[in-house]
Amino acid sequence: MRIGLDAMGGDFAPNAIVQGAIKAKQELSAEDVIVLFGAKKQIEQIIEEQNVDMQGLEIVDCTEVIDMHDSPIKAFKEKPNSSLSVGFAYLKKGLVDTFASAGNSGAMLVGTMYSVGLMENVLRPCLAALIPKAQEGVTVLLDVGVDTDTKPEVLYQFGLLGSYYAEKALGIVSPRVGLLNIGEEEGKGNLQSKAAYQLMKDGGYNFVGNAEPSEIFKSNVDVVVCDGFVGNLLMKNIESFARTIAKRGLIDDFISRFNYEIYGGLPLLGANGVVIVGHGISNDKAIKSMVLHSKKIYDSKIVESLKSVLQSAN
Amino acid sequence: MRIGLDAMGGDFAPNAIVQGAIKAKQELSAEDVIVLFGAKKQIEQIIEEQNVDMQGLEIVDCTEVIDMHDSPIKAFKEKPNSSLSVGFAYLKKGLVDTFASAGNSGAMLVGTMYSVGLMENVLRPCLAALIPKAQEGVTVLLDVGVDTDTKPEVLYQFGLLGSYYAEKALGIVSPRVGLLNIGEEEGKGNLQSKAAYQLMKDGGYNFVGNAEPSEIFKSNVDVVVCDGFVGNLLMKNIESFARTIAKRGLIDDFISRFNYEIYGGLPLLGANGVVIVGHGISNDKAIKSMVLHSKKIYDSKIVESLKSVLQSAN
Repeated sequence: MRIGLDAMGGDFAPNAIVQGAIKAKQELSAEDVIVLFGAKKQIEQIIEEQNVDMQGLEIVDCTEVIDMHDSPIKAFKEKPNSSLSVGFAYLKKGLVDTFASAGNSGAMLVGTMYSVGLMENVLRPCLAALIPKAQEGVTVLLDVGVDTDTKPEVLYQFGLLGSYYAEKALGIVSPRVGLLNIGEEEGKGNLQSKAAYQLMKDGGYNFVGNAEPSEIFKSNVDVVVCDGFVGNLLMKNIESFARTIAKRGLIDDFISRFNYEIYGGLPLLGANGVVIVGHGISNDKAIKSMVLHSKKIYDSKIVESLKSVLQSAN
Repeated sequence: MRIGLDAMGGDFAPNAIVQGAIKAKQELSAEDVIVLFGAKKQIEQIIEEQNVDMQGLEIVDCTEVIDMHDSPIKAFKEKPNSSLSVGFAYLKKGLVDTFASAGNSGAMLVGTMYSVGLMENVLRPCLAALIPKAQEGVTVLLDVGVDTDTKPEVLYQFGLLGSYYAEKALGIVSPRVGLLNIGEEEGKGNLQSKAAYQLMKDGGYNFVGNAEPSEIFKSNVDVVVCDGFVGNLLMKNIESFARTIAKRGLIDDFISRFNYEIYGGLPLLGANGVVIVGHGISNDKAIKSMVLHSKKIYDSKIVESLKSVLQSAN
């Protein structure tokens, strides 16, 4: 397969990106190719310095960069030769099978909409984060930041997207889907969660009711659905708490599993293709994980499965 | 002063409540009286077993109890002789100066509305939680659970209530008020937070802009304002994370400061009187803290200050 990677996105680009790609390449099979989008000369120089050959790597020269300060919609119009613009064009044409970037996440969303678009019948795309459980495994938390004013019917659909992600990419059989809420009982919550509960109850997936925040760390639920504003706050809160604890020198397996480097990037669920959004602070380890996660999601055929389910749902 | 305490509210009532009152009494001055509302015989027996005299304690006999399963509004109508009904009636008549309970928190809200009511010009009451900072001190997080669909103008006012609470009860000069949000820059967030930002900018208190979740544990902000649904989720998430860490045997000063026993109860800000809502799982230590916190809030004259500010604001 051909794994697309934006070499210019993220705080430590292109160095960390290229080094991460080199690390990932060593774990991929001979027929896999990582396609790097970015400044060719710069990328070649980093590869040279690392003393590796180009086997399994390709470079598509891009003369522009969309950075963190660019307004996403404007940037795609004004920078057609940017690594993001060209990368998404390749994804649309099928010249790469997946596309990942640790750059401007708003631009990743816009790029998706302008290129592969959303699957038929998807109301809103979303980002799914993987939060470690205290015992073992992870909880899929979604949305964590795309849709900041989520409608009840969208929450319902996030449950479906999260359920498929947990099953296809994480191998969880009949994933238990909970709705993030301030109480366990039906009827608890704000207007949004009360309405979403009613839709999820007859949802066609394994809905297990409301999940209080403590459930995220426990083993009673696999997928926790929430509004993107709430999910982003919660994810950031969990991350900063874990970071604060780690900084205090407390060494623990649970805390060490909060390392974003383990997965490297979050899939944009609902996109009509495999799009992976990385952390801006990604180092080479995180980029390596993001590349391998891209392949895993592609191989899981989650996009194909979801497409057929969503089509038949209508 | 006269400190009202519901002896029948909470998972370990009346034992833990009465024992907590006895512990608190030892730290109060001779002119302070704790007024216990509840089943007189039962309370007297507990006091007797503890081998203490009645000095500084009073009992108001109440023959009914509003429990966790009661619907709040119905309960006040059907149980006029409950400890909550009688306690709030005493608060309204000035027969106690404060009223605290670890019982049904929905009933505490309804009881407040039916008795002392809200201060003039208060749109919605709220609960303020105290979250430990990594270095030292606490961040006031509000609302953490009363108002689950908070309007922007209410968020603005929560900033004012939180600012006065931080100043009067915690002694913080010109408290820095932040708006909980998914990004630092103005214009970030959902519709609610964008609108609230504009109101808070010209707010008449020390507004320092958006605060990301990580700011709660840092020292750049004293008060963090959010929607009650979001705040309740965040508080529960923080509590469960801290509990999970503590259970894993990690010993740390920061984590140990997450103990709810330290404050024992949260003030219902906006109420036209001092009303303190305790944790359902309160033990005697938590109840002791709640009684002492009641006195501290009464002595701070926060209700009087807020009333005069809110009146002049109109």
